[in-house]
Amino acid sequence: MKLLIIGAAGMVGRRLALEILKTGTLGGNPVDALTAFDVVPADLSSTDRVQVTVQSGDVSDRATVDGLIAQRPDVIFHLAAIVSGEAEADFDKGYAINLDGTRHIFEAIRAQADYHPRVVYTSSIAVFGAPFEEKITDTFITAPMTSYGAQKMIGELLLNDYSRKGIFDGIGIRLPTIVVRPGKPNKAASGFFSGIIREPLAGLDAELPVDDDVRHWFASPDAAVGFLLHAATMDTAPLGARRCLTMPGLSLTIAEVLAALREVSGDGAVAHVRRVPNDTIRGIVAGWPRDFDPARALSVGFKADADFPSIIRAHIRDMANA
Amino acid sequence: MKLLIIGAAGMVGRRLALEILKTGTLGGNPVDALTAFDVVPADLSSTDRVQVTVQSGDVSDRATVDGLIAQRPDVIFHLAAIVSGEAEADFDKGYAINLDGTRHIFEAIRAQADYHPRVVYTSSIAVFGAPFEEKITDTFITAPMTSYGAQKMIGELLLNDYSRKGIFDGIGIRLPTIVVRPGKPNKAASGFFSGIIREPLAGLDAELPVDDDVRHWFASPDAAVGFLLHAATMDTAPLGARRCLTMPGLSLTIAEVLAALREVSGDGAVAHVRRVPNDTIRGIVAGWPRDFDPARALSVGFKADADFPSIIRAHIRDMANA
Repeated sequence: MKLLIIGAAGMVGRRLALEILKTGTLGGNPVDALTAFDVVPADLSSTDRVQVTVQSGDVSDRATVDGLIAQRPDVIFHLAAIVSGEAEADFDKGYAINLDGTRHIFEAIRAQADYHPRVVYTSSIAVFGAPFEEKITDTFITAPMTSYGAQKMIGELLLNDYSRKGIFDGIGIRLPTIVVRPGKPNKAASGFFSGIIREPLAGLDAELPVDDDVRHWFASPDAAVGFLLHAATMDTAPLGARRCLTMPGLSLTIAEVLAALREVSGDGAVAHVRRVPNDTIRGIVAGWPRDFDPARALSVGFKADADFPSIIRAHIRDMANA
Repeated sequence: MKLLIIGAAGMVGRRLALEILKTGTLGGNPVDALTAFDVVPADLSSTDRVQVTVQSGDVSDRATVDGLIAQRPDVIFHLAAIVSGEAEADFDKGYAINLDGTRHIFEAIRAQADYHPRVVYTSSIAVFGAPFEEKITDTFITAPMTSYGAQKMIGELLLNDYSRKGIFDGIGIRLPTIVVRPGKPNKAASGFFSGIIREPLAGLDAELPVDDDVRHWFASPDAAVGFLLHAATMDTAPLGARRCLTMPGLSLTIAEVLAALREVSGDGAVAHVRRVPNDTIRGIVAGWPRDFDPARALSVGFKADADFPSIIRAHIRDMANA
C-alpha cells in the first residue's frame, strides 16, 4: 500500500505516521510507501519496510496538491488545517487552507482517471454551535460559530458529495478536543485544555481562562490515532450518504479534569493551575459543545478512551519515553 | 434604496422584481434603482419611480460580480443557481455557479470598504437528506443527498460566517418546492410537481414519475415573493448565528395534490395525469424531505400559503392575466 498523510508534522499526523511505521502495516496489509506532507518538513524517516518521503508545501497551491495526488496513494489522511484561533484571526488564511486546500485535494483526486482512494478527513466538533441539545446526537444540526467550524463543515459536505458521486471513498471523523497535547501551545483556542494538565505535570504554572463548570468533550492522542486507523480500513458501506461521524470521547467539566489531575498527580499539580479569566476565550468556548451521544461511531467500531486519569497517565508515559 | 437581484430572469426573481416595481418601495422605503442580473437579460423595464438596469453575465466570473457589487446596493437578493437536475448532471457547472458564484458575491462585498448590505440568499429544502424526522424541525441535521443541496448548504455556512463576522447582514431562506411554475419545465428534478397541475389546466397530458403516496413540501410563487420581501426588511437580530430558515409551506402527498386539482378543476383535469414511473426521479425524490415544523420562520413573521386549492386558483388567475 501507498499512503499519504497531509498534515504529517502536526501532533496527531506525526503520531499516526509513527504508529504505521512501527507496524509497517495498515489494516493487516503491508505499507510500502508513505508520503508525509506538511507546511514544514515532518520529523519522520524511512524504516526497513516503509519508504518515507517527507515533503513540505501549501495545500492552497493546487499544483502542489496535484503533484501529491499524482502518486495515487491508496489511502489519503487529510489532517492539514489552520486551527480555530488562527482561522478566526486570519479570515483569508483560514479559507485558503481549510476550504480551498481541502477542495484542491478532492479535485486533484477527481482529475485522476480510474482512481478512487480512501480519504480520511479530520473534521471537528467545532462544526456544532450553541444552543445545543444536552447530549448532541447524530442528527443534530451542524451550526458552527467559528470560521474554522464553518470551513470544516464545508469540507464534510464536499466529502459526502464526492463520495456519493463515487469520486473517492471518504470518511470524516469529528475529533474531540485532543488532550494532552505535548510541547508548546498551538494557536487553537482550546489549547488551555491541554495546558492545565501538561504544564502542572512539568512543574509549571498554567492559566485557566474559563470557569470550573465548563464542560467539554475530550479524547487522547492515542484514541485519535485509533480513530484514524479504523477510519482508513473499515467498511464505509454502513455509513450511507452521511460519511462524517462524531468520534466517541469523554465529557468532563474543568472541575472533573482537575479532580483527575489530582487523582493522578496530587494537590501540588493542581495548585499550578491559576484562574485567569479571559473573555475572548470564554466567548469562543461558550459556543462549543459539551457532550455527545456518538451512537453511529460506536456502532461501526470506533472506541473512546477508558477514563480521564488514563489519558493523563498516557501523557506521563509519553513524556518519559520522549 | 438601491437593489440588486441576482437571478432576476428566473421565475421567482422576475416576480420579485415586478412586485417591487409595482409598489416602488421595499419595507416602506422608496426604491430608486434596481439592477436585474441574470445569465440572460431579464424581461424588465424602468418605471416612473424605479430606474431598472438589466445586465447579463455569469456569477462564476469574479470580475463580473465585482462590477455588480461596486454599485453598493443596499439589498442584494441572490437567487441565481444551477438547479438540482442540472447540478447533478454537470458537476463542474453546479460547483462553479452555486458554490464559486456565491462565494464571489460574498467576497466582492467583503472587498468593499464600509459596506454591509442586507443579503437575502435563497437556499432550498434540498439541504436536507433522508432518513428524516417525521416533521423536520429547525435543529435537524442538514445532510444533503444531491450536489445542488450540498452547494446550497455550503452557501448557508458561508452566509452565516460572513454575517457573524459583520461583513454583511445575511439571511438565508430555504424555499419549499415552488408550485405552480408557469411556462416550460426547467431542469429541476422537482419539475413534475408543477407539471401535474400546469399541463392539465392547459388541457395537456402530464407525466407523473413518482408514486401517489410521495409526500412533499410546497409553496406558491406569491408566497416565495412574500418570503423574499420579508427577509429583505425584517430585523435579523432574533436569528442569532443561525441565519438560515426553513420557510413555512404546505405538506401534501401526490394524492392530496391531485385531490386539490380535482376540487378546483374537476375529473377531466386529473385524467390528464399519466403515471409514468421514472426510477431516476423516484430515487432523487426519495431523498427529499416531506414535512417540516418551521417554527423559527413562523416566529419571525414568515407566512405560508393558506391551502393547496388557493395555490392552484392563484396559478389560474396568473395565466388569465399573462
